[in-house]
Amino acid sequence: MNETSKKLGAHRSIIREIFEYAARKKKELGEDAVFDLSIGNPSVPPPPVVQETLQALLCNTEPTSLHGYTTAAGDIEVRRAIAEYLNENAGIPADPAFLYLTVGAAAALTSALGALLTPADEAIVIPPYFPEYRVFIEHTGARVVEVPAKEPDFTLDLPALSSAVTERTALLVLNTPNNPTGTVLSPEELTALSELLRTKEKEYGHPIYLVSDEPYRELVYDGLKAPSPAAYYDDTLVCYSFSKSLSLPGERIGYVSVSPRAAGASDVYLSVMGAARAMGYVCAPSLFQRLIPACLGKTADIGIYDKNRRRLYDALTSLGFRVVRPAGAFYLFLRSPEPDANAFLEKAKKYGLLFVPSDSFGYPGYVRIAYCVSPETVERALLAFAALAQEYRLREKES
Amino acid sequence: MNETSKKLGAHRSIIREIFEYAARKKKELGEDAVFDLSIGNPSVPPPPVVQETLQALLCNTEPTSLHGYTTAAGDIEVRRAIAEYLNENAGIPADPAFLYLTVGAAAALTSALGALLTPADEAIVIPPYFPEYRVFIEHTGARVVEVPAKEPDFTLDLPALSSAVTERTALLVLNTPNNPTGTVLSPEELTALSELLRTKEKEYGHPIYLVSDEPYRELVYDGLKAPSPAAYYDDTLVCYSFSKSLSLPGERIGYVSVSPRAAGASDVYLSVMGAARAMGYVCAPSLFQRLIPACLGKTADIGIYDKNRRRLYDALTSLGFRVVRPAGAFYLFLRSPEPDANAFLEKAKKYGLLFVPSDSFGYPGYVRIAYCVSPETVERALLAFAALAQEYRLREKES
Repeated sequence: MNETSKKLGAHRSIIREIFEYAARKKKELGEDAVFDLSIGNPSVPPPPVVQETLQALLCNTEPTSLHGYTTAAGDIEVRRAIAEYLNENAGIPADPAFLYLTVGAAAALTSALGALLTPADEAIVIPPYFPEYRVFIEHTGARVVEVPAKEPDFTLDLPALSSAVTERTALLVLNTPNNPTGTVLSPEELTALSELLRTKEKEYGHPIYLVSDEPYRELVYDGLKAPSPAAYYDDTLVCYSFSKSLSLPGERIGYVSVSPRAAGASDVYLSVMGAARAMGYVCAPSLFQRLIPACLGKTADIGIYDKNRRRLYDALTSLGFRVVRPAGAFYLFLRSPEPDANAFLEKAKKYGLLFVPSDSFGYPGYVRIAYCVSPETVERALLAFAALAQEYRLREKES
Repeated sequence: MNETSKKLGAHRSIIREIFEYAARKKKELGEDAVFDLSIGNPSVPPPPVVQETLQALLCNTEPTSLHGYTTAAGDIEVRRAIAEYLNENAGIPADPAFLYLTVGAAAALTSALGALLTPADEAIVIPPYFPEYRVFIEHTGARVVEVPAKEPDFTLDLPALSSAVTERTALLVLNTPNNPTGTVLSPEELTALSELLRTKEKEYGHPIYLVSDEPYRELVYDGLKAPSPAAYYDDTLVCYSFSKSLSLPGERIGYVSVSPRAAGASDVYLSVMGAARAMGYVCAPSLFQRLIPACLGKTADIGIYDKNRRRLYDALTSLGFRVVRPAGAFYLFLRSPEPDANAFLEKAKKYGLLFVPSDSFGYPGYVRIAYCVSPETVERALLAFAALAQEYRLREKES
């Protein structure tokens, strides 16, 4: 037996574990007694175009073609539509010949990382980061190097990044808008990062790729637009999923787009395909591939997330919690009122509150609150948070 | 860059390459001028229950739930339905707690292999075998050991298997009904194999698992039923896909079922989940998970494959070709009339015929003919085969 696999199966993703604990508790105590703020499972239904297009595809397309294998990279018409959209609307240089449809963003990431990494390499991640980055990188045999973001706003720590890049650095994983902090990297930060990486590429004489994980690209608020690192840095692989923007997380449809300007773009693309092949990815689900062209640029109603974001930020702050103000995604990063965020979670559970301690994001002392829930759940959760704040005497400490 | 990934991307699966060549040629010369017998892409539409159930799910299920994440192992109701079906109708011992829904059979295989294999292990395969077995096994770092099947019927070579099993043997990959030969292992062979493996398990003091790849389980003819190795041998992991039985190969829905009687079943199951997690499998596509309970035991109209099988076997035999009579799946294994099957393919291409040389199946000298095409394509392909037979003067050689 493979002990690494067994451990990964036994010590599940903490997020998944809390999510499954929440499901059990809801059955036990009733839906209304549990405030599950653990998982990034969109609460807003997909936009109507999803249902309409799926129905039309089922009615009007010859079924052996609709449900048949596509080429490994995905239907070429779908890839053309996505590349055109990226070029024209997202400021991301893209080419259908370098675009590979995947079974969601996780598969996009494992394919990109499997394409670029060898056991001799180092891959930089920025704590707090999505915990599976470590699992995915270590699956390739490469070493994870952590360069924490800077408090209080969780911006990039450029001097620390500069010191961390070595001859062995093959890539840096970037995630903006960020899970779990909700921060969105600014054009200035991306420009500075690009300059840093270009300098290091020259110094070491080999490409240093950015693997840009962008499933929250469209989930930004206050009229902001999230700039993609691909617009600033040529050696970029964009990993995307339609899970969050279209509220289809279970359907597993996304892509890797290798920038046509990237060093060795053709070879990188072949390598992405080869990595995916070795892991048993045959093609992305064919019905959902065909759905995409009609949905580009459309999103579920993210106004509800924005409403939750404002309400939670304001209410939690006035309860005395310290919260990072999120500009994107649907997460709030809240500082644990005691040093151990796990102990904080245990206290919160008594009030029916479930969220994810930040330890699993490689950054202790915080919790991630997923606010992709109904505004009613937010209101009821806030009553629980009020009781929790009282238990910690947060207001008294402040004064 | 990872050179292994690059090579796997550059030297694509031969089957996929010929399939994509065929698609180009069809565009160039017209659909009628190319007889693409290369890929196992079902030609018969899904049974009506597929369309009906998909429509009903889209109309009647709350969309954030329908398209939302399921637990990693898959919806528990779906797993219960499958386990019940396996126990009651397929003679396969199954338990929903040991059943893991996957993104097709390829993902089932990579998850099972990733669960069981370490770089110190050996995995036995039986040439001719599905070429990706090697890719999937080597991805784990383990070594592939080939024990060819016995001509003329491609039955198991038990004495050779007995010699090939060593202390390092972790598993044997079995595929019945077989791709590419169409052979179906008999109860007697499976009994003898089980006895052999049990003896070896005792001798070496550790489990030797069967990874049973069964996507063609229901595609058997002449009133036969394909027995599953899981009914004969406890230490079995069944890998299944609904691709072939329901004509849904692009939708990627299948499962791994760890026999509840297998040694360390719980640990094996955890390890399957861990292996899948490390490769970026989050859950099987959720809409298609929900489709399955209504479709268990149903198949596309396999009478058409049977018709093609009889027609091709009889006609090719009487043209002078040597063909293995297939009992299942939708492939014919035809002996190349010249030693190099690739040279044979090159000649065949001139007549618009496309099939897969057996070299990539680890067994030179044959070609695989996929007869999951329309009976009209079979008839036109036979005219091309007749011309090809004449070029080789097959009849003259016989007399």
